[in-house]
Amino acid sequence: MSVGMSKVWDLGEKGTIALLASIATDCGVAFREGLLFGIGDDAAAWRGEDGLVLGTIDTLTQDVHFTPDTAGWDEIGWKSMAVNISDIAAMGGIPDYALVSLGLSGDMEVADLAKFYGGLADAARRFKVAIAGGNLYRSLGLTATVSLLGRASEGGIMTRSSALPGDYIAVTGYLGSSAAGLKSLTGSLQSDADTAALIKEAHLRPHPRVDEGQALARCGVRTAIDLSDGLISDLGQVCRASEVGARILVDTLPVHPLVRKELADDLPGLALSGGEDYELLFTAKAQVIDRVMSLISVPVTVIGQVTGEAPGEIALIDSSGGLLKYEGSGWDHFGAG
Amino acid sequence: MSVGMSKVWDLGEKGTIALLASIATDCGVAFREGLLFGIGDDAAAWRGEDGLVLGTIDTLTQDVHFTPDTAGWDEIGWKSMAVNISDIAAMGGIPDYALVSLGLSGDMEVADLAKFYGGLADAARRFKVAIAGGNLYRSLGLTATVSLLGRASEGGIMTRSSALPGDYIAVTGYLGSSAAGLKSLTGSLQSDADTAALIKEAHLRPHPRVDEGQALARCGVRTAIDLSDGLISDLGQVCRASEVGARILVDTLPVHPLVRKELADDLPGLALSGGEDYELLFTAKAQVIDRVMSLISVPVTVIGQVTGEAPGEIALIDSSGGLLKYEGSGWDHFGAG
Repeated sequence: MSVGMSKVWDLGEKGTIALLASIATDCGVAFREGLLFGIGDDAAAWRGEDGLVLGTIDTLTQDVHFTPDTAGWDEIGWKSMAVNISDIAAMGGIPDYALVSLGLSGDMEVADLAKFYGGLADAARRFKVAIAGGNLYRSLGLTATVSLLGRASEGGIMTRSSALPGDYIAVTGYLGSSAAGLKSLTGSLQSDADTAALIKEAHLRPHPRVDEGQALARCGVRTAIDLSDGLISDLGQVCRASEVGARILVDTLPVHPLVRKELADDLPGLALSGGEDYELLFTAKAQVIDRVMSLISVPVTVIGQVTGEAPGEIALIDSSGGLLKYEGSGWDHFGAG
Repeated sequence: MSVGMSKVWDLGEKGTIALLASIATDCGVAFREGLLFGIGDDAAAWRGEDGLVLGTIDTLTQDVHFTPDTAGWDEIGWKSMAVNISDIAAMGGIPDYALVSLGLSGDMEVADLAKFYGGLADAARRFKVAIAGGNLYRSLGLTATVSLLGRASEGGIMTRSSALPGDYIAVTGYLGSSAAGLKSLTGSLQSDADTAALIKEAHLRPHPRVDEGQALARCGVRTAIDLSDGLISDLGQVCRASEVGARILVDTLPVHPLVRKELADDLPGLALSGGEDYELLFTAKAQVIDRVMSLISVPVTVIGQVTGEAPGEIALIDSSGGLLKYEGSGWDHFGAG
């Protein structure tokens, strides 16, 4: 099939579906054991398994979640899949099957579409997800909705609603790198080459914590969320769902040394409300967190504790024990206009 | 919660989610047995069952698939859910869980959003679907993506790829009513009140053939598709997937008597390529079709036969045995610009 300089409307709907199916096949993600009918029928069909089914859906849309000016099409594709994988990871599950609904404009370059879908399929392959089906429709810019199905053992999943007063609050990896990367990509941050590479990668190709999520669940962690909207916003979700409060020791927030060096003025804001790090935030007793630390290789940092006071509220404590004020609490998709 | 004259950006993201969750709860579709975690966590979780899982995804978007000028918001919501239910019906399955991704503009009236989601929840309730989760994002007009999971017994599903030469081709219900309804809604058709009511309802509130799909599968039908893009386009999909040809006797196409009376000039075009009837087209041996006819109450009409000649091609035969020419073959979402 010629991808060259043609546009989506030159291929038409059937030609576009054929192109995407061939990319998925070449990537090895159009099939897996258990999948009986994939791309090309009214619905996909696969063998169900015992235990729990996990299902999530998320959409990335041009000029709202991304712009091709600051991200490559392959990276946009990767991220469309990765943000959903991250949701399954946050429940401690294993991602299995994806359904992909794509809004395309007819004048999109087929070469760009192929790059986008290649990135999406690449993330699927990396995390052993099969693309089981999807549909296409016409839209102004690219809109990518991925619905992802996974599985977990009953009793072994992590939710937002099970945090208990006294639990410690911990996160995997580093915070604020993705938001720093967005600053770098939009030209509002100059930094050395090593830092630029690190933070751009964090923003453009987030790596969902699938293995870590399963390890957490196995260790007995029952409360987790992935950090998509920012620490304060996402921890706020856990606090409201669990009807608890939280104290965060701001000086303990894990920030990558290069980010700390180059963006000292933006801290702790970047780490508190930067968003899109796709790390896991979880709460558990001390001995459970010790077990987690001994089992997984990414850094795990205790950043505070769950309290029984002021349900839904987060107190930010500085090094002298004082209470920090903060404004802004992550993204609201409508409030900010 | 006050719906009154407020806009989506007045509610913000959390307020909007709370409104939609309350509508789903009031409709009785936010919960069902087996659903452990629904709206409000990273992913939904439900108990898996033995057998096959069916999964489908479809998007309706403002000014492409609908305009609020010709459809009420409740009808747009109904249709967003119904088109997916129809895909599960076409496989002979039972729809179970929906994940809903909504793109909303901040200046959408909350009252309109509530009507839309009420219609969507109404279709879910009617077909015993639980809304297990979803997400919101900002967009220019309303974009509704529904991913629907269902189930079927292994060996009992219907696909597009199993038609055999000699099979008869049959459809449920009437063809062309929905396209006639669109003509009526856009003012390009004047008709008597009874006809107008019938065809507008066919277009705005299609009724997926869920019970009929399961009955077909039980009777031994192995090949089916739902008629969304139009008979020629959808039968073409079956022919290509099964590597067979088809002969259609145009005079046998089932058209509702009121439509036949009022739209004689538009026939057989409306029935051949009108689209969006969401009836089932299926192929089977004569005795299987006899069994189907004795079992289901909606009309079933034999309209032609599968052939071994010219795979992928459809011959339209008129009453004198001559070959009709046709132009256009249903919707291509990109080709027509």
